[in-house]
Amino acid sequence: MRSITNEKFEKLLKFMQDEKIDVLMIADNESSKNVNLQYLSGHPMDALFIVTSSGENALIPWDVPLAQKEAQVDEIIDPINYKYNYIQAVKEYLEKHLNKSKVVMAVTDNFPYSGVIRYEESIPNISFYREIPKISQFISDLRSTKSHKEIEILRKAAQIGTETIQDIKHFLKNAVDESENDLAFYVHKKMADKGAEDLAFPTLVGNANRAHMIHCHPWASSQKLAVPGLGLIDFGAKYKGYHSDITVPFSFGELNETQQKMHELTFKAYQAAIDMLEIGVPLWKVNQAAIDVIKAGGFDMPHSLGHGLGLTVHDSPFISRKPSSEYALKYWKEVKLEEGMVFTIEPGIYKEGFGGQRLENDVAIVNGKVEILTKSEFIQI
Amino acid sequence: MRSITNEKFEKLLKFMQDEKIDVLMIADNESSKNVNLQYLSGHPMDALFIVTSSGENALIPWDVPLAQKEAQVDEIIDPINYKYNYIQAVKEYLEKHLNKSKVVMAVTDNFPYSGVIRYEESIPNISFYREIPKISQFISDLRSTKSHKEIEILRKAAQIGTETIQDIKHFLKNAVDESENDLAFYVHKKMADKGAEDLAFPTLVGNANRAHMIHCHPWASSQKLAVPGLGLIDFGAKYKGYHSDITVPFSFGELNETQQKMHELTFKAYQAAIDMLEIGVPLWKVNQAAIDVIKAGGFDMPHSLGHGLGLTVHDSPFISRKPSSEYALKYWKEVKLEEGMVFTIEPGIYKEGFGGQRLENDVAIVNGKVEILTKSEFIQI
Repeated sequence: MRSITNEKFEKLLKFMQDEKIDVLMIADNESSKNVNLQYLSGHPMDALFIVTSSGENALIPWDVPLAQKEAQVDEIIDPINYKYNYIQAVKEYLEKHLNKSKVVMAVTDNFPYSGVIRYEESIPNISFYREIPKISQFISDLRSTKSHKEIEILRKAAQIGTETIQDIKHFLKNAVDESENDLAFYVHKKMADKGAEDLAFPTLVGNANRAHMIHCHPWASSQKLAVPGLGLIDFGAKYKGYHSDITVPFSFGELNETQQKMHELTFKAYQAAIDMLEIGVPLWKVNQAAIDVIKAGGFDMPHSLGHGLGLTVHDSPFISRKPSSEYALKYWKEVKLEEGMVFTIEPGIYKEGFGGQRLENDVAIVNGKVEILTKSEFIQI
Repeated sequence: MRSITNEKFEKLLKFMQDEKIDVLMIADNESSKNVNLQYLSGHPMDALFIVTSSGENALIPWDVPLAQKEAQVDEIIDPINYKYNYIQAVKEYLEKHLNKSKVVMAVTDNFPYSGVIRYEESIPNISFYREIPKISQFISDLRSTKSHKEIEILRKAAQIGTETIQDIKHFLKNAVDESENDLAFYVHKKMADKGAEDLAFPTLVGNANRAHMIHCHPWASSQKLAVPGLGLIDFGAKYKGYHSDITVPFSFGELNETQQKMHELTFKAYQAAIDMLEIGVPLWKVNQAAIDVIKAGGFDMPHSLGHGLGLTVHDSPFISRKPSSEYALKYWKEVKLEEGMVFTIEPGIYKEGFGGQRLENDVAIVNGKVEILTKSEFIQI
């Protein structure tokens, strides 16, 4: 079943007509992933999806039986009928369904230049739409607000994560010589047992010696977990293609004054951000609210406050600073909070020698209200 | 440290000069991976690498400290000096190092069309080399034979896998109610403990009910492992960016006549392929040798015999059938066995109701001799 609603699908067709795009093609394969495939067709991976500006559409999948189960399209074209020459299959589809002397095709962000050249050589009447950021942004904007069906799936991904927090608490309470790696594997197994189809991303475990790095290299190590100070685990579940993302801050032993302050400011910044959430508020102001709290306490936040969740773990919208440089402003536009947005709120403070502290929950805006999907907490051992 | 040898680096420059390419650019980021970055610069990920046809080169990395540790380049350019406008950094580099009125830039296979458009708009004197399959193939061919240094790393990746076979044997002997997932997690943990930086690919575990599918969906399931018949586990380690790939066939209970035949033919086909390995032999003939054994026994092999191993788990060369269609022949060329090639040999036979059988080892051609890097075996419980 495709994720896009019929109403949004019509908006996409309208966009194509306005931009004089005859056909949009989405390609997903091992070396170039594109979740718009699942969004627009329901089929999870390894296929070409084409849709004309009048809405006719077809899927050319590598795995036809999977497509018959998952795809919601007008037509499934078996590539074996074209001896796996996908371009020929597209060519014949366009001849049959468009029959125009000139065809404008659009592709999205990471469609390879090598592919464009091969299409141009094989289909003489084709030309490619050049405003790729515009159409990519348009689809990304469609995806940035979720339908009730999508939110149902995101709630389940979040629930798997929240239930795993209790497992983490159990693990931390009993940790003696266990390593960061041991916790990462434990969490992976626990989420798989609860129905996660995969990790949302590699689990990051930083003990107090490593947690001052925003993104530890490696994500988890053979270092002992139970060392005094502030640590954190950042993890999430993938479920039916959708993602959750949670950071649980923890500590071993007594906190000194600096550590206590880092902990309290993080939670205060989190609450300040949550309190800002209201339909219509510009997202950079939510980011600023958290920064203001942290700066007032004498610390900095070296990253953005949050990001959207959906078919990727970094969907639109992004909750980040309004850029200062002219170059960056050119590609920036103000985004305001809308019904259906699902995103993380994750303020953090890091200081070498003291550790790191980040609190992260997933939040949805449903029927105008703030719904906090996950239940992270501070685990003090 | 870059993987490419100085001798091969000179060949690449010669190729660029012959093709009138002024500069080659390799881009790797989260949404478009390109292992040629590590091959040519030593830097593992998230960077732009540029090299001119006279060999001058620079890296623009997201993580500058990591580049200072890993990269082997003339110059590291910190993108913060360009406010993360990578295109501007490239533009100024080209002005300084080429100073030509027209610059021809080459990119490889999955460089996005959207990037090409942005470069064209920002650097008026740039044009893009269109024979992308040619340069991608050229670099892929360079990578298809490994240096002694690369083979050392591949041996270690293989060794991690081989040692894990003993863990698998232990697990299978003690398996009662354990699931396919349980074995997959066990193998992941065991390889991490032995120094693997990651799985080479998601571990595939098929019990006798599922192993007749070449690539099971999902890769491993909650089904019980110990069911009578032929099963298999296909797994590998990633080590310093290089990959191993092993399939261990196993069985639970007595084999019937068909299963016994499937097992014996698989091992006979494997040996027939190994016996063919000799410098200069066309690889499609090695593939054919295995198929001939399996066909003579009344079965089919529904996949290719093997693939190269290196910075990807599907490197050149490919040990597969000579294509029959005219379209496919256009993109095919005969590849012969060469010194330094490292690849899998993995014949298999599959039959619903009986299970699946595949034997896979990694093989290197070193000093003209066949070196079998892994030690897969049939585990009969």
